Parts: sequence; structure tokens; C-alpha cells
Amino acid sequence: MSTELLRATRARTLALAEPLSDEDAQLQSMPDASPAKWHLAHTSWFFETLVLQPHLPGYRVFDERWPRLFNSYYESLGPRHARPQRGLLSRPSLAEVKAYRRHVDAALADLLPFAPAAARALVELGCHHEQQHQELLLTDILHAFSCNPLLPAYQAGRPAAANAPAQRWLQHAGGIVDIGHAGAGFGFDNEGPSHRVLLEAFEIGNRLVSCGEYADFIAAGGYREPLLWLSDGWATVQAQGWQRPLYWQPDGSVFGLHGAQALDPDAPVMQLSFYEACAFAEWAGARLPTEFEWEAATALQGFEQAADQAWQWTRSAYSPYPGFRTAAGAVGEYNGKFMVGQQVLRGGSLATPPGHARPSYRNFFPPAARWQFSGLRLAR
Amino acid sequence: MSTELLRATRARTLALAEPLSDEDAQLQSMPDASPAKWHLAHTSWFFETLVLQPHLPGYRVFDERWPRLFNSYYESLGPRHARPQRGLLSRPSLAEVKAYRRHVDAALADLLPFAPAAARALVELGCHHEQQHQELLLTDILHAFSCNPLLPAYQAGRPAAANAPAQRWLQHAGGIVDIGHAGAGFGFDNEGPSHRVLLEAFEIGNRLVSCGEYADFIAAGGYREPLLWLSDGWATVQAQGWQRPLYWQPDGSVFGLHGAQALDPDAPVMQLSFYEACAFAEWAGARLPTEFEWEAATALQGFEQAADQAWQWTRSAYSPYPGFRTAAGAVGEYNGKFMVGQQVLRGGSLATPPGHARPSYRNFFPPAARWQFSGLRLAR
Amino acid sequence: MSTELLRATRARTLALAEPLSDEDAQLQSMPDASPAKWHLAHTSWFFETLVLQPHLPGYRVFDERWPRLFNSYYESLGPRHARPQRGLLSRPSLAEVKAYRRHVDAALADLLPFAPAAARALVELGCHHEQQHQELLLTDILHAFSCNPLLPAYQAGRPAAANAPAQRWLQHAGGIVDIGHAGAGFGFDNEGPSHRVLLEAFEIGNRLVSCGEYADFIAAGGYREPLLWLSDGWATVQAQGWQRPLYWQPDGSVFGLHGAQALDPDAPVMQLSFYEACAFAEWAGARLPTEFEWEAATALQGFEQAADQAWQWTRSAYSPYPGFRTAAGAVGEYNGKFMVGQQVLRGGSLATPPGHARPSYRNFFPPAARWQFSGLRLAR
Amino acid sequence: MSTELLRATRARTLALAEPLSDEDAQLQSMPDASPAKWHLAHTSWFFETLVLQPHLPGYRVFDERWPRLFNSYYESLGPRHARPQRGLLSRPSLAEVKAYRRHVDAALADLLPFAPAAARALVELGCHHEQQHQELLLTDILHAFSCNPLLPAYQAGRPAAANAPAQRWLQHAGGIVDIGHAGAGFGFDNEGPSHRVLLEAFEIGNRLVSCGEYADFIAAGGYREPLLWLSDGWATVQAQGWQRPLYWQPDGSVFGLHGAQALDPDAPVMQLSFYEACAFAEWAGARLPTEFEWEAATALQGFEQAADQAWQWTRSAYSPYPGFRTAAGAVGEYNGKFMVGQQVLRGGSLATPPGHARPSYRNFFPPAARWQFSGLRLAR
Repeated sequence: MSTELLRATRARTLALAEPLSDEDAQLQSMPDASPAKWHLAHTSWFFETLVLQPHLPGYRVFDERWPRLFNSYYESLGPRHARPQRGLLSRPSLAEVKAYRRHVDAALADLLPFAPAAARALVELGCHHEQQHQELLLTDILHAFSCNPLLPAYQAGRPAAANAPAQRWLQHAGGIVDIGHAGAGFGFDNEGPSHRVLLEAFEIGNRLVSCGEYADFIAAGGYREPLLWLSDGWATVQAQGWQRPLYWQPDGSVFGLHGAQALDPDAPVMQLSFYEACAFAEWAGARLPTEFEWEAATALQGFEQAADQAWQWTRSAYSPYPGFRTAAGAVGEYNGKFMVGQQVLRGGSLATPPGHARPSYRNFFPPAARWQFSGLRLAR
Repeated sequence: MSTELLRATRARTLALAEPLSDEDAQLQSMPDASPAKWHLAHTSWFFETLVLQPHLPGYRVFDERWPRLFNSYYESLGPRHARPQRGLLSRPSLAEVKAYRRHVDAALADLLPFAPAAARALVELGCHHEQQHQELLLTDILHAFSCNPLLPAYQAGRPAAANAPAQRWLQHAGGIVDIGHAGAGFGFDNEGPSHRVLLEAFEIGNRLVSCGEYADFIAAGGYREPLLWLSDGWATVQAQGWQRPLYWQPDGSVFGLHGAQALDPDAPVMQLSFYEACAFAEWAGARLPTEFEWEAATALQGFEQAADQAWQWTRSAYSPYPGFRTAAGAVGEYNGKFMVGQQVLRGGSLATPPGHARPSYRNFFPPAARWQFSGLRLAR
Repeated sequence: MSTELLRATRARTLALAEPLSDEDAQLQSMPDASPAKWHLAHTSWFFETLVLQPHLPGYRVFDERWPRLFNSYYESLGPRHARPQRGLLSRPSLAEVKAYRRHVDAALADLLPFAPAAARALVELGCHHEQQHQELLLTDILHAFSCNPLLPAYQAGRPAAANAPAQRWLQHAGGIVDIGHAGAGFGFDNEGPSHRVLLEAFEIGNRLVSCGEYADFIAAGGYREPLLWLSDGWATVQAQGWQRPLYWQPDGSVFGLHGAQALDPDAPVMQLSFYEACAFAEWAGARLPTEFEWEAATALQGFEQAADQAWQWTRSAYSPYPGFRTAAGAVGEYNGKFMVGQQVLRGGSLATPPGHARPSYRNFFPPAARWQFSGLRLAR
Repeated sequence: MSTELLRATRARTLALAEPLSDEDAQLQSMPDASPAKWHLAHTSWFFETLVLQPHLPGYRVFDERWPRLFNSYYESLGPRHARPQRGLLSRPSLAEVKAYRRHVDAALADLLPFAPAAARALVELGCHHEQQHQELLLTDILHAFSCNPLLPAYQAGRPAAANAPAQRWLQHAGGIVDIGHAGAGFGFDNEGPSHRVLLEAFEIGNRLVSCGEYADFIAAGGYREPLLWLSDGWATVQAQGWQRPLYWQPDGSVFGLHGAQALDPDAPVMQLSFYEACAFAEWAGARLPTEFEWEAATALQGFEQAADQAWQWTRSAYSPYPGFRTAAGAVGEYNGKFMVGQQVLRGGSLATPPGHARPSYRNFFPPAARWQFSGLRLAR
């Protein structure tokens, strides 16, 4: 773990919050999303609770009343403020939360030069944890802004025009492949143990499905044809009245970090649920890849848009790898307890911090979730 | 309508928002409550829409996109931002809303010297409307703060110690009484037409029920004895797990504008639902007065705490008076359309603006509502 | 109380259940409705629990496990099977419930010749209670049948053609009137105490609003115009997608005891909620009468369709009369605890047992309830 | 497909319904369960719609109004009566549904001697489909009876005492194994295509977890320790107040086909959700097997209670096998569209028809489902 990683990570989080007013930073638009201010505080609480309290002698907790506010879901770390009510915390203020960050940063600076390996490993985990929240900060503020009829823009300017390569199928011969994280670099526990998987031969798209292609699916009546959908998906389409991706506006524009912009047919389609991804694939005479196919395919020549545009729904449910055991203590709650009812996404997105993702990385969300930078790549 | 009323009302609203940070002013803790910022904007929208647009030639709407954000419930005035999502409006900012207020104030200042009587009447209505929102601003921010485990105080200091007079029964002989608003001063449409009501003789308490008396009811098992409760009330007690008034804390303190404070047994009990008020009265061998009894009783010698402590639930459902007709246009939506499913409260509270209430004043809330400054006075 | 009333009442309940199969008798189509079999058993439980157990020495309870199944809502009489699950009681069978009825009937026959006055009064109450359930048995089975796409008919044949007199306004001069039940005959506790009410002069329709008139309201867009509706009513119209009365079918027919039949424009409109009744009245430039106006108007020359067609929503919320006190014990739960959140209906319907209703009779249902034989009479 | 299979299957369904009264046969205790009468009709509708209408010239549909009542979930076969309202169909009667069965049986008898292979394949599918509903008929009536405080017994007598072999671990060396259905016999589409899977070495229990072992888990506080549970599981435990398996009674007895019986510590624990199975395994220091491990383990010496006691939750989400494609037409809706949000169960239960299950058989239910004969076998 490099000290530079910690410094850069902590600084980047603050920079991401820079365009937000105090009011923006408090927005919580649904129980699944959190306020930006909460992300800023929670990531600090993580270092305070898992690193500083056990490893820095004499560390003074910034405010004894705060841990219950900023513990996300760790049952082993005490009671928690109810998740759907994070947006009701006008106090502490954004300024106070920033002071909290400085307090934690200073203590980490004290600790690091003398930190034992176990502590350094936890600091590294804390950095990768904070990077995850960096992306969530963006997806969550975007969702909140999408609920405001004024459709505020997080960022000025316009997105760069997309440049979609021609769609073609890449061939994979199948066979036994190595799956999961191995080697010296950082990996989350859910990426291991590294193990072998036997694949049948398959084909996979060289790039993501584009907005133009998805618009064709809509125009062909994709949202009105039940036979294209998984049963749960069709029920959701009807119950929620889905007619297009989450941020596609009735006027034809697409909402994003730059506010509402004209739809770019070459840009990858995003803010899709797993259900929509499956229905599109069915309509296109294809399917989604499994997470193992996806990981194996990253080594293929011509595999584009791997991790820089949108996370890619896979046909794999989020399950433990053979031999997976959760760690003892709070860290064991990090990933394992979510391994049911979710689908794996692979890759990375335009909102993923640089250097955060890797081919073995396993992102996961429930199949109806739509507010992430989530798209799809076809297989067959 | 005096120009001074307008000036004072507009200034007082701003003063009430003064202790609030930008983040506080955006809090919405439940669909029934609104952010302080929204109250500031909505009361300005009311003047803009009902007074300035029809009556001030050349008036420029401050922002064409805002009326849909700040229309509360007027179907005749176009589409509205969904009520439960008022807390998601980080934009416009509090500063922008204050600029909106100045814009409207300036236009009203232009209009008033030359305003026709119809316009002046609407300005007067707008002032009384804004006074209602002043109380709601306080009840709503108090509810929001009560959802924060830190229990922030709106106001520094401590409340003045209460001074409860001895409880005694005042006698009213019954007979035909005049009910409703009459005469030259302002009254809302729901206070009329003035009419006669025939009352049986009754007795009414000289003051409100105190916290000490209510604590006895709790200690006697009041929240566990179904026979004391209306059927809907008992169902609510069980479904919501009610055990004490909304702001009474498990540690024995009572939350209020000054934060959590020691319970004052002489202070009137507040933040009660109609259901709780009825159950207490049943336990005390008494009942709630009707709104007509209450209004008639205000003339009795010794009738204390009429309008300065807490609104008083009555046994009367909120219904139209004989001959009541709603006005044409948007103003007609002000009161009449809510005349079902609610109970009348009479009096006024410590949060009611000075001069706002009067004996004929009819406040109303659903029977399960608890977040108002609402208590009770017994009758029999 | 005449022995003949008991005999006739008990026999009539059985006769009403005669057209029903065992399967029909078990249907529960919503929490507010009960299976016919349950009505048969509950009315017997009422006699067993309130009359036979306290007053017939040596009475043997038919089955010790049944009281909890057939207690409706009496908190003072022990735990109860959850109301929404009454339709899950395939056991006891209809045949067993009929045996229960015979057991109770035999015991009542033993008791009556020697019954003290208090017991005879409870038997009389039990008869009127059972008559109420006779109407509910019909409204509930009708609702259940309406949920079956086959739309089964409870009764063969066709309803008699209606004969609507010309609509005209009857005048009432107002003044002090006597309201409530007085004299020797039976009356429920909620009809008293008899007392005086001061009325303003008013006009009231000589008959009920007809299906033809209501069809005009629909054709004029009544279900699409928010300004005609109470706020809660309009919210319900939108949430439930109401477009016509509950049993009016999309094909223009009207479902009823005889199955789906052609709409008869002269027949009174029924299966209306209070909200719909109010919206119609608003559209017609009129209003609903209060329950006091209604009661006073029954004495007017030309007041037709008083109690033989449909219950008539009034503008009065269901509240206690001056001096009303609930009785001690379980009987006290009969009416008083429902006195909030409901509107009073007056009159009687084609499903009301002969002799059951009277001018002082107060029926009551929540404002959104639609499955009763409930219509309206205009006032102004 | 043998004619005998058809005859025996159809007869067995009727025999299973024999202990049920008309009232029992109509019970629907939750949206996920269906009335026995509906199962009787739906299985006939399946033959009528998929076999007789396309393949028997001149076939007369029994009642043109019924297909919409008894179509379960086939979007391609027209509109359907809402699933949660199946219990409201008192008409057609049980007798009429039995006549429907005879009508369909007679037509199938006419068809079979001359049926083309495609038709015979559909008849075979219909038989296996009906066998699935035989088990559901039992699980559904059992759930309905469990909601009746009288706890009726489906069957007289007592269950045979269980005989649990000593628990021991069976070893599997891992490697490439063949998974899925292959060969001549019948298999559902979701069991194929047959393919190879690479397994790590593992151990698996020789028998199911017993009631005695599960009681130890409860006594050890298993339902109160969040760290044993998946996150969704713990949320469900809290929201539903789970404290023991679905049919374990507070008095220590266990409800089942023979009514409430004393808990047999040697009998396999059943009516467990996936969440409970996982929590138990975690507590026991083990895990659930994957469906592939389970299938491979059936070949091990000493693998007991494979398919005769309880279905066995696996750690595998229900996903398509490599190369799986749904068939064209309605048959394609049979399995594929449910391949998300569910967990695979393997084996078979005491309620599974003889000859129905096989090692490649994939049963599936959502992770919170508890009303099946579902237990668990440990792995590690």
C-alpha cells in the first residue's frame, strides 16, 4: 500500500464533491442511494473504526455520537441510523464532515510510518472502499438531480462525442480458464479464491451495445412484448411503467453528468437494469455472457470498452467462488453477506476511479437496479 | 389590509428561517411536512400567482420553471412537483429562494398603492396564508430534527417554566349560540357562514391537560388498554407501536424547539393525535368538546390557555357550515376540498403567529397526525 | 322482544344463504367483507357469548375453539382470528356451522320463556345485530361474485323495472327539530340520546339520484375533473383508476344480485362511495344533506325512496350525539368505538331486512367504501 | 410416453384431492399458492390448450370462458385471471372441474392411439407438469390449513418415525463431471443441455440436517445472531419475525400432513427458506453444496435421503446452462423466464410423485420461500 494511494484517494473524493452545494450534498433520493455528505463521512468512519481505533494508540474519536450515523451495514459494529433516513442528517453540516475528514487524515498520517502490515492492509482496503464510494457518490447525486424537474447539471460543458467501433463477434474457444484474482496486487475477497472454470466455446461482442441500437429495440416495441422478458422483469416493466432507460427523457434527450443532452447514437447505452439488458439480448438473438466468459474474453484481441464506459451486466448471479470464506470480524461483512439476489456486473465505467477496476473485479446489483452506469455487451 | 401586515408577515417568515442552515432548510422528513425553503418559496408563489400575475400589469414571473415546484395543491393552477419529493429540490438554493422573495416583495410594493380592493383582499389572504406556513415551518423543522439522533435544537436556551392553574370545570348553560366568523376583520372561508347552533348544557376545563396528568395516563397503562381507544386509534397504536406522545423520549425528556428538555409536569401536553386525546379523555371520565362548545366557551370567565399553548382537538369532524360554498377559481381550493377525514382543532399554539388566531378559527388535521402543537382540553 | 322476531330473523339468515354453495359461502374478497359462512357463525356466536353463557345456567359452548374464530371485533371478549383471514376457514364446514346455529337456537328456545328482562333485551339486540349481518351477507357475496370473471348471479330472474318519479325539491323551513331515537321501540345506542338540533331552511330531493343522471355526470367528464372532488376523493380516483360506479361494467351493463343486467336509467344509482356522491352533487350544483336534515325531511310530504332502494350518504361525519356514553362491557363496543373517520348514511336499501330501519337509524362507512347499496339524495 | 403414465397421473391427482371438502379445495392462503381446485383445472387446461386444441380435430373446448381462469402464466396464450384471486373462484364448482377433467381425459383417450410424435411428447410433458402440480397441491393445502387456528389434518394417522443415520462426510475428488439430463428418458428443458463442469474436491453430508440438529441451532440463538445470516435473510428475519421453521408451533409441535405432531428429532427439518438453510450451515461451520456438487454426489456410496424426504437448497442461483435456448411458443415459457432471483433445490420430497424426480432435476424457489418440503444437506 502506497501512502500516495491514500493521499490521492482522499483528495479525489473531496474534489468530486466540489461542484456540490451544501444542499446538493445532503440529497437522498431513494433508500438505495446516499447523500454525498454521507459518503464523505462514511469513508472516514471506515478508516476511523477499522484502522485508527484498533491500531493508533491514543486515537480520539472525532465525535462519539457519529459512528452510529455513518456505519453503513456492519452489524458487528453496533446500531446504525436507518439507511432511508440518511438524507435527514442536516447536522453534522458539510463543513463539520470535512473537518472530520481532516481529523482522520491527520491521524492516518501519524499512523502510517509505523503501521504494522495488518494496519497497512486495512488502509489499502479503506482506499479501495473509498474508491467504490466515489463512483456511488456520482451515481447517487445523478439520481437525485434526475428527480428535480430543473434537471441540474453536475458538470458544465458537454460529453465528448462517442466513437463506436463496428460491432463484430470475437471468438473464444472455451476450455479450462483461470478465474479470479491472483498475484500481488489488491483484490477484494469476493474475487477469490482463484480457481479454474471449464468453458464451452462462445462468441462475445467487441464493444458495448449503443444507444442507437437500444433505440431500435424500443422502436420495435421491446417494452411492450412480454415474451422478450424474464418473468420478474416483465412484472417490473408493468408495475413501474418502464418505457425507456432510466435517464432517457420523454423529449428524446438523455440526462447525465452534463445535464440533459441530445442522445448520442454511438454512445453505449447505460442506466439499464439487468432485466432490460436481458430483454435486449433476447430481441437481438443473443444473450448476456457469464461472468466467467467475460473475464476470459478480456484477453481477446479487439475486446474494447472493457472498463471505461459502463459496467456490463452478466448472466451470472452473485455467488461465492469455490472455497470462499468470509474473514472474521467486521471486514467479513464487506462482501459475502450480499451473495444472494444480485447479478454480477463486470468491467468498469466512466465514473470508476482510474486504477480501481481489473478483469477479476466483481460488481453486483439487484436485477431491477437502474441508476448505475450499467450497460451490456452481447454474447452467443 | 394594512401594508404593515404584509411587511411584518414577510419579515417574520425570514426571521423564523434565520436559525436554519442551508441544509436544515431543505429537510423533508415525511410527505406531510415540507422543507423550510419550500415554505419560503411557496408563500411567495402564492402572491406571485394569485396577486401579481392577475393584478400587476407587466409583472415578470421570477422563473417560469418554478411555479410547478412551489404550487402546493391547486389543481386549477397546473401540474405540481410531487409533494413527497419537495426535499429533493436542492436547486433552487436557499439564496435563490430569498432572491425570489425580494423580487415578489418589490412587486407587491409597486402594486399596493394602486391596488383595487379585490387585489388588496388577496394580499390580505396571502398574509394569513403565510402566517399559517410560519407555524408549519416550525412544526416541520421540529419533526425533521426529531429524526436526527443528535436531536438538534432550533433555539438556544430553555423554555420558560409552565404555570398550570388548578384544573376546574367551567359551566355553560347551553342554548342557541352564534358560531362562525362575522364582522369586519379577516376570516377564512371555512369559518362561515356565521350561523346559530343549539347546544345542550356542558362543562369544560379551564385549562389544557398537562404533561403530568398525561404521564399518569401512561403510567396507568393507557397505551395498553384497548377499551379506552377508538377502533382506528387502537389499530394505529398497535401498528405504529405508540407508547407516549411523539416527542417524549425514552429517557424521560421531551423534545421541542429548545431540543431535549426535562419534562415539565405543569406544561400542556402536546404533539398528540386525536386518538390519544380521545383515549385520555375516556380514561379521565370525560370527553372532548365539540368545536361549537369550544367556541362558545371562549366567552366564559376563567377560560385559560385559549390560544397560546397548543391547538385543542375537538370531537367535531371538519365539515362545511350550513350555506358554505367554495369560491370560484383557485381560491376555492383553499379549504373546502379538505372537508372529510379530518378533525377540527381550535385555539392556537405557542407557534401560532401573534394575531393570527381567533375564537372562530378552524384548524384541521387527520386524526392520526401528531407532529403539530396539538393538545387537549376536557369537557363533559 | 317477541319470540317471533327471533324465529323469523334466524330463519331469514338461513334462507339468504340458501342459493350459495359451500364454496360460495366461504368467499372473502377483501378484508372489509366476510364469508357468508362466517356471518352465519358470528351471529350465532353473538347469542352464545352475550346471552346464553351469562344467562342460561348449564349452557354448553358448542365448540370451545370457535369463539376466537367468530368474534368480530370485541376486544373485551378475547383474542380473534385476523379479519382478512376469515376466508381461510374451510373448517368448520358450512354444515357444521349450521349445526352450531341449531344448537344455539335450541338453547335460546330453552332460555326465552324464563329469561329476565336484561336477557330479553340482549336477545332483541342480537336480532337487530343479525339483521345487519343479513344485509352484509348480501353485499359481501355480491362483491365476491363481482371478482369472478364469470359474474355469477346470486338470484335468477331480472330485477323489476324501476319507476323514477320526476325529480323535484321539497322545502323544509328549518328551525328546532327533534333528532334521534325516542319511544318504546328498539333503537341502537348510537341513535341516542334524543336531542334537539337547530336547522337552517333547506331543500331536499324527493327521490334518489338515478342511473341515468349519473351516466350524464360520467359523460360530462365527472371522473376527470379534479375541481368537482374532495381532495381525498380525487386522490382515490387517481390511485384506484375509478371511472364509474363499482358494479358498472365496461360493456355498459350493471352487476347486481341478478348478475349483469342492462343499465336501467330510472333505477337509483348504487355502489357509490361518499366521494363520488359529493362529486356528483357538486357537478349538479347541489350538495348532500346533513343527517339531521335527512331525518327531519322524512316527515315531508312527497319524500320517496326513503328506505327501500339505497342507503343515502349524508354530509355528516359519524360522531356521538350530545350526552352519548357507551354501555359498560362488550355491548359498549358495538358502535361507539367507530365514531371517527366514517360518514353517516341514512335510509335503508333493497337489501335491508323488512322492519330493520327507521328514520333515526344511523348507518356508517368510510368515505371510500363502495360495495354497499349506497346512493345519494341531493339537497341545497 | 406410455398411456399408463397418463392414466396413472390423472388418477393420482384426483386421489390427492379426495380428502378435501369443496371448501378445502378452494382455499388460497397467499398469492404464491393456488387452490386444489385450481390445480385440478389448470392441469386439464394445459392438456386442452397445448395438446387437444392443436392436435385433435374437432375438439370442443369444455367452456370458452375458462381458459382465462386456468392459464397460469403463459403470456402467449392470452389474458389471465389475476393469480392472487384464484381463491375467489367459487364457480366453477369442484364438481364442474371434475367434469372438465373427464371431458379432457376422454378427448385424450380419443387422441392418443393416433397421436403424432409431437403430440405424444406434449402429452408426456403434460404428465410431468401435472406431477409438479401434485406436489404443489399438497404444499398449498398444507399452507392453507396452517393458517386455520384449528390446524386441520390432511391425513389421519401419524407419520412413520424417522430413522436418521449417523451424520458423516462423503468425499468427492472433484474434476470434470457431466451435468444435466442426457439420454432417452424425459427431462425438462432447464436440465439441459448436458455439459461438463469442473469441480474442486469437496465433502458432502450423507443425509439431511435433522430437526434435532436444527433445534440446537435455535437454542443457540441462531435466529438472533445477524452475523450468521445473509443480509437479505437477516432483513427478512426481522421484518417477518421469524423464530423457527414455518410449521414449528410455539408449543413445540410440528404441523404437517398429519396435523400437529410431536417434533421428531431424527426427521429431516423442512419448510425452511434458503436464508435459514444458509444460516444453519454457517453456524455449523459448513456451507450448502452447489447444484453441480449435489448432482455429482448422488453417485457417491452412502448418499442417503436423496429424493424421498425434502428438497435440498443449493448454493446455486437458478441460471441457464450453457447453450440453453427456450423453445418457440408457449412451451418456451415453461422454465426459462424464471431464471433470475431464485435458488435451485435438488432432490425430491416425501410429497414428490414416485418416479418424478431424477439427479438432474432442477427445482427452484425464491430464497425467502418456506412453504415447500425444503430442507438442507451440508457440504464443505
